[in-house]
This record gives sequence, C-alpha cells and structure tokens, in this order.
Amino acid sequence: MAKYAKIPEATVRRLSNYLKCLEDLEQKGEKVASSALIALICNVNAAQVRKDFAYFGEFGIRGMGYSVNELRYHIREILGTNREWRIAVVGIGNLGSALLMYKDFLKQSYKIVAAFDQEPVKVIGHISEQIGKPIEILHIDRLKEVVKARNVEIGLITTPPPEAQKVANLFVEANVKGIMNFAPTQIRVPSHVVLRNVFFTAALDNLVYHLSN
Amino acid sequence: MAKYAKIPEATVRRLSNYLKCLEDLEQKGEKVASSALIALICNVNAAQVRKDFAYFGEFGIRGMGYSVNELRYHIREILGTNREWRIAVVGIGNLGSALLMYKDFLKQSYKIVAAFDQEPVKVIGHISEQIGKPIEILHIDRLKEVVKARNVEIGLITTPPPEAQKVANLFVEANVKGIMNFAPTQIRVPSHVVLRNVFFTAALDNLVYHLSN
Repeated sequence: MAKYAKIPEATVRRLSNYLKCLEDLEQKGEKVASSALIALICNVNAAQVRKDFAYFGEFGIRGMGYSVNELRYHIREILGTNREWRIAVVGIGNLGSALLMYKDFLKQSYKIVAAFDQEPVKVIGHISEQIGKPIEILHIDRLKEVVKARNVEIGLITTPPPEAQKVANLFVEANVKGIMNFAPTQIRVPSHVVLRNVFFTAALDNLVYHLSN
Repeated sequence: MAKYAKIPEATVRRLSNYLKCLEDLEQKGEKVASSALIALICNVNAAQVRKDFAYFGEFGIRGMGYSVNELRYHIREILGTNREWRIAVVGIGNLGSALLMYKDFLKQSYKIVAAFDQEPVKVIGHISEQIGKPIEILHIDRLKEVVKARNVEIGLITTPPPEAQKVANLFVEANVKGIMNFAPTQIRVPSHVVLRNVFFTAALDNLVYHLSN
C-alpha cells in the first residue's frame, strides 16, 4: 500500500469530502469536472483542490479538468475505500437505527452486516423499505461468534456511555481491525486496533470556535 | 476575542477532546492532572499535550501538573464554549431524536431550545426521563418565528438530504450564525454563516485510510 505518500489528516478529510462531491456529480451525469467546479461544490478554494490532487500525480487534462470517474477511482484507492468493508453496529437506539439506515454507507462500500443490542426483540421495520433489506438485531451475547463468522472488520459503538468499554473489549476479542465510537466517553483499545471517536460536542466546539474568533 | 493567537484546526479538535477528558476527571473528583495523565486518557502523546497547552501561556505548576478546573476554564474560553449556545434541531427522525437526548450537549452549555419536523405530532416521550425536560416538536412552518423569538444561534439539520437546503435557507433567513448539517448532502450558505458538515462516511473514510496504510 506504499503506492502513495503518507497524507496529512486534513487532506484525508478533504479527499473524503471530494469523493462525496464527485459522487453527486456522477449521479447528475457529469463526466468531467474542473478544479474550480469541485472547489465550488465542496466549499474549498480551487488552489487547495489542485494541491490535494497533486498528491497522486498528474492526471487532470489541461484546460479540460478531471475525469470524474478516474478521480473517484484514485481517491478511493488512496483512502482504501475501493473495496467492501464489513461493519457491525452495537446499540440499536436512535443513533444506531440512524446508522443502519444511512444510505451513504452503501454508496461507499460500507456494508453493515450485523447489528446487536441487549434487547434483541427490537426490529427496525422500516429499514426494509429504506435500503431494501431488513437486518436482524441479535443479542449482544452473540457478538464474538457472529462478528467472526461474518468477517466484520469495523465495529460501531452506539451504546450508552457506561456500556461502551465492554462492547469495545468484545470487538477486540472478536478481532475487528477498527472501532468507531459514538458513545460520548473515552474508551481504550490495544494499539493494533484503530479507534476513532465521533463526539457531537466536538463538532459543535469547532463550529463555536469559528463563530467566536 | 483576539486574546489568543489563531489556532490550527487540528489543535481546536484536540482542545475539544481535552475538554471532554477534563470533565471526566473532574467528575471523578480529580483536582490536578499531569500532561502524562491527560495524554493517556485522551490517546495523545504527552509532548503534544504540552505543546497544545502552550498556546495559552504557562499555567501548569512545575512537577505538579495542571489544575483541572483552571485548564477547563482556559480551554472553554479559547473555544468560545464558556457561555450558553442556543440550538434548534430540524428533522426529528432517529438522528434528530438522538441529538435531542445527547447528554453531553448540556455539560458543554449547548442548549437545544427548539425542535421542528414536518410532522409536529411526534412527541419524544422519553426525553423527559433522560434530560429532565420534554421538548415540544413544532411544525417547520414556525421555524423562522420561533428561532428568532428563542434567540437560536445554531441550527442542526437532521432531515433527509432532499430537504436539507430548504431548511438551511430558513435558518439563514432566521439569522442563525452557524449551521451543522448532518444530512449527507452538500448545502450552501452565505459566507457570513459558518457551516460544518457531519458526514458519517467521512469518519469511516478516515478510519479505513488508517487501516489501509
């Protein structure tokens, strides 16, 4: 995977954003996009776009812009999203249910293949309407077995904070590679597991910093 | 507000994370914390912690560490979270409901004072149990009037993607200062309004990048 240089975090974030914009463009039938157009849609300046794209060599057509399809291909290759990633969600309350129905996951090859809760009787009826396939919610006692059997690589934690560490431990024992924690509490994982937190207060703090300064 | 130097985005993110850790420490009754302890809890290295704290001058006590209370005070002052911010949420589906019940918002002076949906008959019964006070869900037609009357400064959008731009326009007309968009689509706002997107695919892209590289 050492085809591309190591990329700064901020660039990774922007690449992810470009990818989303390019998908929107592709859906609208656009085949070619200038850096100016991409910049406009993504709320970035055009010089930044060109600088970011320079990370993976020259492939824009001078005076024409970039091939939307080719650009998507390269960004997905860099990010590692050019293949399916199998995901499990634990904690099917409001947030867990929202994630199960998040349509953009499918667009990006993120496939939720297992869902767990302490109350397995919950059935998210309308998922079947939204993404075409209902998902059975299993009791958390089955996590380790099912995560292994279904080749889950990434675990999402959407439990209340007091449960989050226990769930993280189960995911680690089941050999997931990455954990995304939505529970507003710090959890610990061994260094070979990649952990990312999604704290909604952090997003608001960032917004408020820019409103205040 | 020019008391502190402009801070890089990555530092803003870490400050927000430190703040969360410090709140956890304070709840546990800790009065003083070393940079090593803060680093451990926040999954950052200690040198990074000391470097970040240097942005707001020297106030650690050599050999003792930092006063948890004082540190919280400074970080909140820098971020601008040292006062109440009044928030409205539009789109009370699963994600909107999750945000209405997000306990950490209150800890950080983020106060949700209005909630809107196209179906105002929805009542989130269990909010009353969770955060002590039920919130009435109003019809979206009342957004402009209510947002102004309740001095809302920040709008959260948790509608389906096709509704997001319309809601953003309403928020702008109602003079909110900042918008946080959770709908997985790009929206546009005038330059005097601060916009932040929370796309769950972006968080997963970042995780996957680190799993792949």
